[in-house]
Amino acid sequence: MRKILLVILDGMGDRPCPNLGGRTPLESAATPNMDRLAREGMTGLMDVIAPGIAPGSDTAHLALLGYDPLEVYTGRGAFEAAGTGVDIRRGDVAFRCNFGTVDGLMKVIDRRAGRISSGTAELATVLNGMRIEDVEVIFKEAVEHRAVLVLRGPDLSSDVTDVDPHEVGAEVLSSTPLRPEAQKTARILNEFTRKSYELLKDHEVNVRRMEEGKPPANIAMARGAGSPPDVPPFSELHGMSGAAVVGISLVEGVCRVSGLDIMDVPGATGGLDTDLGQKVEATIRALGTHDFVLLHIKGTDICGHDDSPETKADFIAKADAALGRLIEGLGDLEEDIVICVTADHSTPCCVMDHSADPVPLLVWGKGLRHDGVETFGEHAAAHGGLGKIRGKDLLNILKGQAGRAEKYGA
Amino acid sequence: MRKILLVILDGMGDRPCPNLGGRTPLESAATPNMDRLAREGMTGLMDVIAPGIAPGSDTAHLALLGYDPLEVYTGRGAFEAAGTGVDIRRGDVAFRCNFGTVDGLMKVIDRRAGRISSGTAELATVLNGMRIEDVEVIFKEAVEHRAVLVLRGPDLSSDVTDVDPHEVGAEVLSSTPLRPEAQKTARILNEFTRKSYELLKDHEVNVRRMEEGKPPANIAMARGAGSPPDVPPFSELHGMSGAAVVGISLVEGVCRVSGLDIMDVPGATGGLDTDLGQKVEATIRALGTHDFVLLHIKGTDICGHDDSPETKADFIAKADAALGRLIEGLGDLEEDIVICVTADHSTPCCVMDHSADPVPLLVWGKGLRHDGVETFGEHAAAHGGLGKIRGKDLLNILKGQAGRAEKYGA
Repeated sequence: MRKILLVILDGMGDRPCPNLGGRTPLESAATPNMDRLAREGMTGLMDVIAPGIAPGSDTAHLALLGYDPLEVYTGRGAFEAAGTGVDIRRGDVAFRCNFGTVDGLMKVIDRRAGRISSGTAELATVLNGMRIEDVEVIFKEAVEHRAVLVLRGPDLSSDVTDVDPHEVGAEVLSSTPLRPEAQKTARILNEFTRKSYELLKDHEVNVRRMEEGKPPANIAMARGAGSPPDVPPFSELHGMSGAAVVGISLVEGVCRVSGLDIMDVPGATGGLDTDLGQKVEATIRALGTHDFVLLHIKGTDICGHDDSPETKADFIAKADAALGRLIEGLGDLEEDIVICVTADHSTPCCVMDHSADPVPLLVWGKGLRHDGVETFGEHAAAHGGLGKIRGKDLLNILKGQAGRAEKYGA
Repeated sequence: MRKILLVILDGMGDRPCPNLGGRTPLESAATPNMDRLAREGMTGLMDVIAPGIAPGSDTAHLALLGYDPLEVYTGRGAFEAAGTGVDIRRGDVAFRCNFGTVDGLMKVIDRRAGRISSGTAELATVLNGMRIEDVEVIFKEAVEHRAVLVLRGPDLSSDVTDVDPHEVGAEVLSSTPLRPEAQKTARILNEFTRKSYELLKDHEVNVRRMEEGKPPANIAMARGAGSPPDVPPFSELHGMSGAAVVGISLVEGVCRVSGLDIMDVPGATGGLDTDLGQKVEATIRALGTHDFVLLHIKGTDICGHDDSPETKADFIAKADAALGRLIEGLGDLEEDIVICVTADHSTPCCVMDHSADPVPLLVWGKGLRHDGVETFGEHAAAHGGLGKIRGKDLLNILKGQAGRAEKYGA
């Protein structure tokens, strides 16, 4: 059985760009490594969700990990929570939170507590680990004023309204249940909100802030309740261990909820300045210990959203060079691996957003079939031997090529 | 967001014709406009229902409008009724009817009342608007002896047998329910049939006919009960307004039941002599006021049924010229539209009927991807970049290309 490396260039798929002589960024970029894999392997196009559907990065990654998003997706909330590094389990309810500033009557003075940038870890510590009734409270700070709240316990529901009033001058809201079974969750969330004010208002971090004339971060306001999708862990579903090297927290959240091990990558920023060398190192390390590794690179998507075809092409060329170093670094494993390079969706520069255009795809492995397509690009891949596939079938195809498919029947 | 023009050449798909040197009518015809769109755009093949299924024009158009016919189709009855211009709603039961001639013992003398060709509007007037119990009767004459009956009210069912005995010399039948819940409908239909005889037998139109020695149209005999499919209106399902320029009443019925606005086209006959110029005008008008326009042209199908490959090729060339005029007439809209040309099914001349051969398909829009296919034809499209798609996915694909796809996920 071979190992599997799945390289996702976020939003790489594009349309003909007038600035690039009618080629797409991928077609315009110098990509000797992807071209070699395409030439020696099979190519095709992929509707990541379904024909005519513009995928989000979360639903797309669910599909690429072999889950059917149309069946299991429950919204972005739990993925964003998991993306901060909090371990989210089935049955949990997760919220995005803001540290905010309220007056003594619970009226919002600043929804972001002056975009507080330090001290939130200490503030989070006093909220984390609290118990309310039979529910455990997990609370973790994120970037700036942002944080994540997870409620863990029996009979919770994500059908509750926000506490965050979303406007300055308004009072902090009382969460209400959207259906009777959510009554307990709303009650616990309201109790948590009340307690957060009690525990934070005189906290030394806030005393110091007030001395400095800054608004205190004296409340945690939750919004966007979400539950993780009810999916079997990746290793159970696919019979192999998996790890992920990811560029952004939303995708990290999907991978974490799916049970992949998240590799720690110093220097990975999720931007165009990300340290691709470090990501390559982490990927090679992960392949040493796992059967399946997902390498996710974000920069391409950013260029699509910004309508920067030249920058997108440059970044694709850099990613290709990194892929070259990765393949070199495989050593003997090169004989014994299946590599797939594709995207989670198209972000055409002319659209400046995710589109429903299918993404190009290559599947390569020593001794596998090839299809006569000579380069890797959207137009060439339309004639590839893999034809047009659906995202949720990809991992099965890769497992088949890696000798990991189970025989169905006798 | 762009507008969408979907051009359906009914039954256009074909097989190699010996008379045409082994080419299909589409391949043999001079089609410079379709060829240009194919060359600049994407092509493919489409299984309108599913692989190996020969579609009817009604099920095919349901699929092409984004409904799944395998889930929602309830028979042709309601579409035929709607095709006469009667407004059919969910819950209605529609019947095809004949004006017939019976004797005093309700024995059928002529199932078509001598193919009565005038006076049916007056006869229909006395039947239309009747109430039986809590049910409203809608009755409308159609071509010659044909008419449509719609029952509208609570608790109706289409599971009832015909009143029309389908043979001369037999007695008019009593409709019976095929399941208990249809008892009311059968009772009302039988009462309607009895009343139609009472109201028509001495009607002045019939008095005149008898004076002229013609059989009186003294009864309305219903058959083929049908309910419209329980589908959401097109505008609700797709978030865009739609209109149709259609060649035949069955397709008009599908469009009407789906909630498309039907354009009035003087000179449209549904035959080879149809006024394509008028249809082009109506299509351009419709594009001025609607997001989506379906242009349906019937002639191709007729040639297939008649095994007339040369005539079919000639008609396709005429349709291509009309398409050229249509594109010219778009003006500035040409920059901002997605055009799809395809068929609802194949009607190969050698088969003389609908077949399961997939239909060729092109999708074109300024700045969209292309696939290197140079002409529009069944064999070339087999190598197109759209690959093989299903009919029910087509509208989503077109919406995606028109920037009308909603993002699924974050």
